[in-house]
Amino acid sequence: MDTNLIIGLAAASLTTFAFLPQSIRAIRTKHTKDLSLPTLIMLEIGIVIWIIYGYLITDIPLLAANIISFVFMTVTLGLKLKYG
Amino acid sequence: MDTNLIIGLAAASLTTFAFLPQSIRAIRTKHTKDLSLPTLIMLEIGIVIWIIYGYLITDIPLLAANIISFVFMTVTLGLKLKYG
Repeated sequence: MDTNLIIGLAAASLTTFAFLPQSIRAIRTKHTKDLSLPTLIMLEIGIVIWIIYGYLITDIPLLAANIISFVFMTVTLGLKLKYG
Repeated sequence: MDTNLIIGLAAASLTTFAFLPQSIRAIRTKHTKDLSLPTLIMLEIGIVIWIIYGYLITDIPLLAANIISFVFMTVTLGLKLKYG
């Protein structure tokens, strides 16, 4: 693999899996008051549009990263809507 | 502009500016307890690597989006480190 690809994969992995600890924290604490609802909604809609874009341009890494992000983000947004 | 480009720009704008309301909320409330520190650190490092990647492959939209995200993320991470 060339250096650029490794760097790109590192960046994508970090920003994709970054949302996992936030989901876990919200599940554990049942507390989401400090999370911004507009932020979560914008991220959720943005991720869905990234998935559509990834599909349209047939970019598998982009699709995969955003489908994973979508799962974590949906959990966090769902808990925010539940706990406020 | 073709449809794919418009969809890509919409996705990039949403996921970039999504972090602004979170910064504003943290500044206003001085409360960041529910934010996951690992999430913020992974996003901050991931964004820096995206900037390096954008520079290496000379991708101006990727660079621009991540430099903007970096500002919002640094504010939020700084406030998380301050308020806990």
